[in-house]
Amino acid sequence: MAFDIGTSFKITLWGQSHAPALGIVLDGLPAGESLDVAALQSFIDRRSAHGQPGATSRSEPDTLEVLSGLVDGRTCGAPLSFLLHNTNVRSQDYQGMAQTPRPSHADYAAGVKYHGCNDPRGGGFFSGRMTAPLCIAGGVAVQILERQGICINACATRIGTAETAEEMLAQISQAQAQGDSVGGLIACVAQHVPVGWGDPFFDGLESKMAHLLFSIPAVKGVEFGSGFALASMRGSEANDPFAYENGHVVTTSNHNGGINGGLSNGMPICLRVAIKPTPSIALEQDTINLATQDKTRLAITGRHDSCLVPRAVVCVESAVAIALLDSCLTHLKAQPLTK
Amino acid sequence: MAFDIGTSFKITLWGQSHAPALGIVLDGLPAGESLDVAALQSFIDRRSAHGQPGATSRSEPDTLEVLSGLVDGRTCGAPLSFLLHNTNVRSQDYQGMAQTPRPSHADYAAGVKYHGCNDPRGGGFFSGRMTAPLCIAGGVAVQILERQGICINACATRIGTAETAEEMLAQISQAQAQGDSVGGLIACVAQHVPVGWGDPFFDGLESKMAHLLFSIPAVKGVEFGSGFALASMRGSEANDPFAYENGHVVTTSNHNGGINGGLSNGMPICLRVAIKPTPSIALEQDTINLATQDKTRLAITGRHDSCLVPRAVVCVESAVAIALLDSCLTHLKAQPLTK
Amino acid sequence: MAFDIGTSFKITLWGQSHAPALGIVLDGLPAGESLDVAALQSFIDRRSAHGQPGATSRSEPDTLEVLSGLVDGRTCGAPLSFLLHNTNVRSQDYQGMAQTPRPSHADYAAGVKYHGCNDPRGGGFFSGRMTAPLCIAGGVAVQILERQGICINACATRIGTAETAEEMLAQISQAQAQGDSVGGLIACVAQHVPVGWGDPFFDGLESKMAHLLFSIPAVKGVEFGSGFALASMRGSEANDPFAYENGHVVTTSNHNGGINGGLSNGMPICLRVAIKPTPSIALEQDTINLATQDKTRLAITGRHDSCLVPRAVVCVESAVAIALLDSCLTHLKAQPLTK
Amino acid sequence: MAFDIGTSFKITLWGQSHAPALGIVLDGLPAGESLDVAALQSFIDRRSAHGQPGATSRSEPDTLEVLSGLVDGRTCGAPLSFLLHNTNVRSQDYQGMAQTPRPSHADYAAGVKYHGCNDPRGGGFFSGRMTAPLCIAGGVAVQILERQGICINACATRIGTAETAEEMLAQISQAQAQGDSVGGLIACVAQHVPVGWGDPFFDGLESKMAHLLFSIPAVKGVEFGSGFALASMRGSEANDPFAYENGHVVTTSNHNGGINGGLSNGMPICLRVAIKPTPSIALEQDTINLATQDKTRLAITGRHDSCLVPRAVVCVESAVAIALLDSCLTHLKAQPLTK
Repeated sequence: MAFDIGTSFKITLWGQSHAPALGIVLDGLPAGESLDVAALQSFIDRRSAHGQPGATSRSEPDTLEVLSGLVDGRTCGAPLSFLLHNTNVRSQDYQGMAQTPRPSHADYAAGVKYHGCNDPRGGGFFSGRMTAPLCIAGGVAVQILERQGICINACATRIGTAETAEEMLAQISQAQAQGDSVGGLIACVAQHVPVGWGDPFFDGLESKMAHLLFSIPAVKGVEFGSGFALASMRGSEANDPFAYENGHVVTTSNHNGGINGGLSNGMPICLRVAIKPTPSIALEQDTINLATQDKTRLAITGRHDSCLVPRAVVCVESAVAIALLDSCLTHLKAQPLTK
Repeated sequence: MAFDIGTSFKITLWGQSHAPALGIVLDGLPAGESLDVAALQSFIDRRSAHGQPGATSRSEPDTLEVLSGLVDGRTCGAPLSFLLHNTNVRSQDYQGMAQTPRPSHADYAAGVKYHGCNDPRGGGFFSGRMTAPLCIAGGVAVQILERQGICINACATRIGTAETAEEMLAQISQAQAQGDSVGGLIACVAQHVPVGWGDPFFDGLESKMAHLLFSIPAVKGVEFGSGFALASMRGSEANDPFAYENGHVVTTSNHNGGINGGLSNGMPICLRVAIKPTPSIALEQDTINLATQDKTRLAITGRHDSCLVPRAVVCVESAVAIALLDSCLTHLKAQPLTK
Repeated sequence: MAFDIGTSFKITLWGQSHAPALGIVLDGLPAGESLDVAALQSFIDRRSAHGQPGATSRSEPDTLEVLSGLVDGRTCGAPLSFLLHNTNVRSQDYQGMAQTPRPSHADYAAGVKYHGCNDPRGGGFFSGRMTAPLCIAGGVAVQILERQGICINACATRIGTAETAEEMLAQISQAQAQGDSVGGLIACVAQHVPVGWGDPFFDGLESKMAHLLFSIPAVKGVEFGSGFALASMRGSEANDPFAYENGHVVTTSNHNGGINGGLSNGMPICLRVAIKPTPSIALEQDTINLATQDKTRLAITGRHDSCLVPRAVVCVESAVAIALLDSCLTHLKAQPLTK
Repeated sequence: MAFDIGTSFKITLWGQSHAPALGIVLDGLPAGESLDVAALQSFIDRRSAHGQPGATSRSEPDTLEVLSGLVDGRTCGAPLSFLLHNTNVRSQDYQGMAQTPRPSHADYAAGVKYHGCNDPRGGGFFSGRMTAPLCIAGGVAVQILERQGICINACATRIGTAETAEEMLAQISQAQAQGDSVGGLIACVAQHVPVGWGDPFFDGLESKMAHLLFSIPAVKGVEFGSGFALASMRGSEANDPFAYENGHVVTTSNHNGGINGGLSNGMPICLRVAIKPTPSIALEQDTINLATQDKTRLAITGRHDSCLVPRAVVCVESAVAIALLDSCLTHLKAQPLTK
């Protein structure tokens, strides 16, 4: 179904940008896992627009409410249910959007699919705001994985054509000043993943991670290890030779990004994600009026990010963490039965 | 589960490279859909090594057996069950592979995961041979989608560093002659997909297609529309303006590859896939002996493709077709109920 | 997963008896379905203890909050998310329950399963209170099915050994006066279900309905049509002959309860459910002290129903409605594709 | 989907009564589990008509073919794929069945659902023959569970109105002699199931077992423990008091059939299943001609069982074993994560 995913760690999203609230239900966690709610709040705060370069002025405090699943700070076997209130909503910004679809937004396709019944305010459930509950799931997964020794870190490696921190900020400022937006790249590394997590075929780590990553609005490309660069390599160059290092099996290169045949091989899991420029821009664009069937021009008002990359970093970490925790729990069933 | 996927069109793979047979079960098709078994055989024959440049000399006739689900050439509501026999098996080629894992293969990770119980012969169920039943599912989906007016076409757009047909063949020949292998790129276009297929979030078209594409062994990158190039674009450049063309809604560019918010927008769905070089090469490579914990060298004998790209083209079409048919059938439930 | 179910109409329960709230997420409904929230509130109020014979004095107002999925009273394609606050909680009633398990409750088995980390207060997520969100899903399904002409009605047909309304009330009063509890039977009929809903095997109507019915705490038996009585019949007696009635196909008896081969056959769907006596009774019972490993006696204090049957009637209707709506939406995909 | 089921132990049925073959795919078993194929053959042979009282003269040798998933007698992590050939097929027996639906068979409802495209021969995929692959899954589950110390035994406890072995055989003979059929009851006990298997709500043991049991054609009622008799009991009578026996927790009665709150409590799991009389009888019955819309009479020729109960015993054991193994594997994830 569109709003849930997971084999062993099942997450169910709900909400719309301008509904009273949005949230997520997490099922499948073992009982007795401790959860630091303050740390979880800090994790999802990294997604916040507040203080991010080029971010929207819509201020969303996103104060986490834990509705079920925790007893004395530990999971109790019941689903974890989390809620975030939508507080700072200016629905009038979205008047007329259904008739004048915003380029590269879901407005037009959703209007056709849902025969005009979908919620156009703030993008409805196509809003990037839906990544807030995704980050809740991610933050929970990160805490559990960290106790297994796994750390997941993502960062922006490029904004537009710039690759240094200073230049990246400049690219965002320029785009913002011009009523425009800009895209970028995010790299992510998951370290100390044990050998053998993941599964062949449809539960391979790459399949599961890519599935979650492409569900983040604005993601248009995903590659693992050397990714697209592998297309121009020879096998003798691309293969990662096995070796022993302090008694542990390693590979002396990591073109495969820590994944062979869908399984972790013990090396860092490395991936890169392409983020398109925010489609909501102040600059006037060509579009159509679906009522009159005429051409028209659209200058998007409202409060929008001029670059999604800084806020998407924690979303990427979340997608990776969710996939890894699901693989971790599924892996427990691959163990030989006693007797 | 690792071997099945699909919400409305459910496919279940089974088999290993050196088991008596391999096959697939397809569930969820409406009754009454005609299926041209000869055309399906031709479709999966495109995956065959026979006559492909640089392909393995293992000759697999892959004659399709239809075991259930068809009555007089039409689906009857029962699952379609297909079987392919494994006929040309030389298991002795794989002796000792468990102790001396092949670089960039699943051997090592699978040995750890399955605590030595997995089938090492021919890569077991990590074998590229498992894409044969995937192509059966793809071929069935293609036939049904074609009757809906949809056509899906993939082709190699680069082999190694070469982009013309002649140069591509030369790259493969050179790699083969040197006991090496080479990677490449495959582009795929799905045309005439109706507006509104797909779903938000976890059933978005990009998520579903990427999930299936990354389950094809050797795929290490997937991008939609302008993909990674979008990272360096401005929104004013990357956005696809809506317009009317002969009374139909179109976009005047297609940087988003026909997908907005996980939904088809009526434009061609465009994607590119990076294929790594075949990890099995004749050139000697560094690896380890897991029994003695020593370094060793490995020259892979047996019959292997020196470039997977030509045979992977039909696999890419299959993955795209499977995702689209699943979205098509799921979409039927999004229609308003009568009364 | 334990807390979600459904192929096309997916429901995800969350909450515990003494958590801040409990609720349910409904996914898969077509956009544009109108929902009468006041009627839904009335539906779930039928489950309320208020005014029911022999019901607990724990007063749960159960005021429905709709958090997402509705725009102007119609579904918008987003999941419907509902919340009920737990307001009238007396957790001290449950002190010591983990050490002294209540007979025929989940306390003991849950303590072992969750290694002491589950929430013992009020039965945690094993509480009958979890049927409140189940009734929300049921009430939504009932509204949609009613617009398709389907009506679902359940009623108590026996309490203890009594089968008339007056005697049934007397049985409850007597049990309550004696600090005891009593079981009963509920019959349910779904009328005007179109021919051909349901699916063979694992999605047969009986399988789906029984699955949901047995998830209602206290249900210990389910039978369809003449059910257990069929065991002593001859085929010539049990078979339901087809006939025409006003041009419609009917059967002249209905021993199969409107279901053949898992599919609706157009006749009323009839089933009966056995409800065990509430296990929480004031009368002293034998049990054990898990800490001291001694025998002990337990008189359950707290507020409990002396008969679950009156409140379970709407739960039975809900389970049947959820299964039918799921089958209805799934059935849409069984239709022939156009072209 | 209609033909697959399972959370951790996933089974996918395929086939029709008169297709070339039928079979099943089993996914999710840990690698390294030994499987005795001869013992599995013996298990499914118990379902055979051969030598059963009142059974059909259609002789189905049902020789098991293992197509994948086994290496040297042990699971290798790949799906187990099994095939049975349909050899003894007399399709002419079923001519005209689509126009003259057999009372209490799926013919009529299936014809409407699949708009005439379903396979009417031998009942197609509604045939009791589809329980053969179900028994394969059951037999695999039984072997694995037995190594965990669990034994599952079912037997007929009543045929028609008879409860002794001699009388039961007489009831079958009489029915057969009269061209009629007769129903019965099957009881099943699963012993030594560890405490805490199963899950709350939708993965409760009763829900999962009932789901599978009702997918067996002819099952019309399922009850656990004292089942329908609990409806007339008081709580003080129905509750099962806990006690210690040789240092183990037991209950001194077992009215709940070893299941509390969906979880096993360590006592024997007890259930009863009502089997209706075979609907295919030689005696002439009323039915309709769908082509002419007239009343007509039907005497079913062909080869049919006059009592399904003897052959259904192993099907009941299979359904219970499949549910238990699924719960066993799912339970592994409920364990606390290390660290």
